[in-house]
Amino acid sequence: MNKAQLVDNIKLKKSFLCIGLDTDIIKIPAHLLSTADPVFEFNKAIIDATKDFCVAYKPNIAFYESMGPAGWESLRKTLEYIPDNIFTIADAKRGDIGNTSSMYAKTFFEHYNFDSVTVAPYMGEDSVTPFLEFKNKWVILLALTSNKGALNFQMDELIGGDRIFERVLKVSRHWGSDENLMYVVGATRGELFADIRKIVPEHFLLVPGVGAQGGSLEEVCKYGMNSTCGLLVNASRSILYASQEMDFAEKAKIEAATLQREMETLLRAKGIV
Amino acid sequence: MNKAQLVDNIKLKKSFLCIGLDTDIIKIPAHLLSTADPVFEFNKAIIDATKDFCVAYKPNIAFYESMGPAGWESLRKTLEYIPDNIFTIADAKRGDIGNTSSMYAKTFFEHYNFDSVTVAPYMGEDSVTPFLEFKNKWVILLALTSNKGALNFQMDELIGGDRIFERVLKVSRHWGSDENLMYVVGATRGELFADIRKIVPEHFLLVPGVGAQGGSLEEVCKYGMNSTCGLLVNASRSILYASQEMDFAEKAKIEAATLQREMETLLRAKGIV
Repeated sequence: MNKAQLVDNIKLKKSFLCIGLDTDIIKIPAHLLSTADPVFEFNKAIIDATKDFCVAYKPNIAFYESMGPAGWESLRKTLEYIPDNIFTIADAKRGDIGNTSSMYAKTFFEHYNFDSVTVAPYMGEDSVTPFLEFKNKWVILLALTSNKGALNFQMDELIGGDRIFERVLKVSRHWGSDENLMYVVGATRGELFADIRKIVPEHFLLVPGVGAQGGSLEEVCKYGMNSTCGLLVNASRSILYASQEMDFAEKAKIEAATLQREMETLLRAKGIV
Repeated sequence: MNKAQLVDNIKLKKSFLCIGLDTDIIKIPAHLLSTADPVFEFNKAIIDATKDFCVAYKPNIAFYESMGPAGWESLRKTLEYIPDNIFTIADAKRGDIGNTSSMYAKTFFEHYNFDSVTVAPYMGEDSVTPFLEFKNKWVILLALTSNKGALNFQMDELIGGDRIFERVLKVSRHWGSDENLMYVVGATRGELFADIRKIVPEHFLLVPGVGAQGGSLEEVCKYGMNSTCGLLVNASRSILYASQEMDFAEKAKIEAATLQREMETLLRAKGIV
């Protein structure tokens, strides 16, 4: 999917919601456990219930990988089930020397046909560029994450005045463009979105941390939204596990629809829809 | 495996060689391709030929993952085939928020029974500590990598004078101990081992980049070896693909034995054996 298509979908659905498919076999409603592939059956029901309210799905690869080969099969079926006009993100946080990153890129872009992969920046340019060589595929590079550990290194100040996350943005933006490179920026750092937009005004940002982790959707939009929206805001557990009973999909739909309405208000305020 | 056992193995085998199992179906000798599981058959032959000369095997997870569920099955069989007294490293470069890192840790430590996993430091403490909660299992944290992209961020200087890789060492060494935490330090930066040993004198270092990438084993040992050796030096392609003919295992054995003899000389010079 290219940027114009993503922006069109946001305008059409009046939503910039990304739903994280962190599907945990321990949290799946009991009545699904007797099916042949509970993880896929759960995802299928969630997708059916929420696809009108979101523009992206983000399977968290750890959850599938932890189930062995069967988990990868659940992932493949899930990817095939997601409608073509919804952007897909492999939340894998990969990154290695060039020939190895090429292998990871092939896995997610060719074997599973994801639109994008999250990548860690520590190993630098040659660990990222193999992912950028695929047409209409995206790297989503970690910049400023939503977790507590983000404070260990990402905010450290370098000689010259940049913090590490700013250096990552400034250096890496030249590796690709806003047509194939996005950044992860946690919602828990709302006020820092203004600093980030000074460096990457046009890039899309993938924003975890709204909801359970305490980030504010309004603050993220106040400082982070640009003229094409430029945001994919992720919610995972608050939607997936809104209920763990028979009505889980119905409750997930209500949660997703609520977030979509909040997003529509914010998009209208900005004049995007 | 704990540290004392690893050091005992180094002394017994007079080797600190780690062999990277970057097994690439494209490079496997043709006569193996007709077997049911060529990747496993290749690894099995390599392990049989080299197990007396190395103390660790390091499957590069990207290569297995790229083959879909069958690749994970090849990986599982390979891990089961590696003798118990050889240290195993999942070269996966994972790292994510706490609950996700826990999933990755379970995958590699419980499902596949690896002794260690390589982890990227960018997301900080809570992305690493879930891996440290497993008894006799290890995190091998990226500090200074062997690739060109290492120069993009890892060598940048922070206010206060530390370079980023030094800050990573100084902060992270408190998350675990030299009994459950190692660091990746590329052989291509031989002279920097002295700086690294000032910060982590006792920790084991996993050292890629000797051979094809141009690092010098002697220089690494001059600055990096400590009283328990403290080094696992990795070679991958130079051993695995020493020949792509029927004699591949025999040639791999010769390469591994040559490296073992060089290592024995260096261990003797240091008085470790």
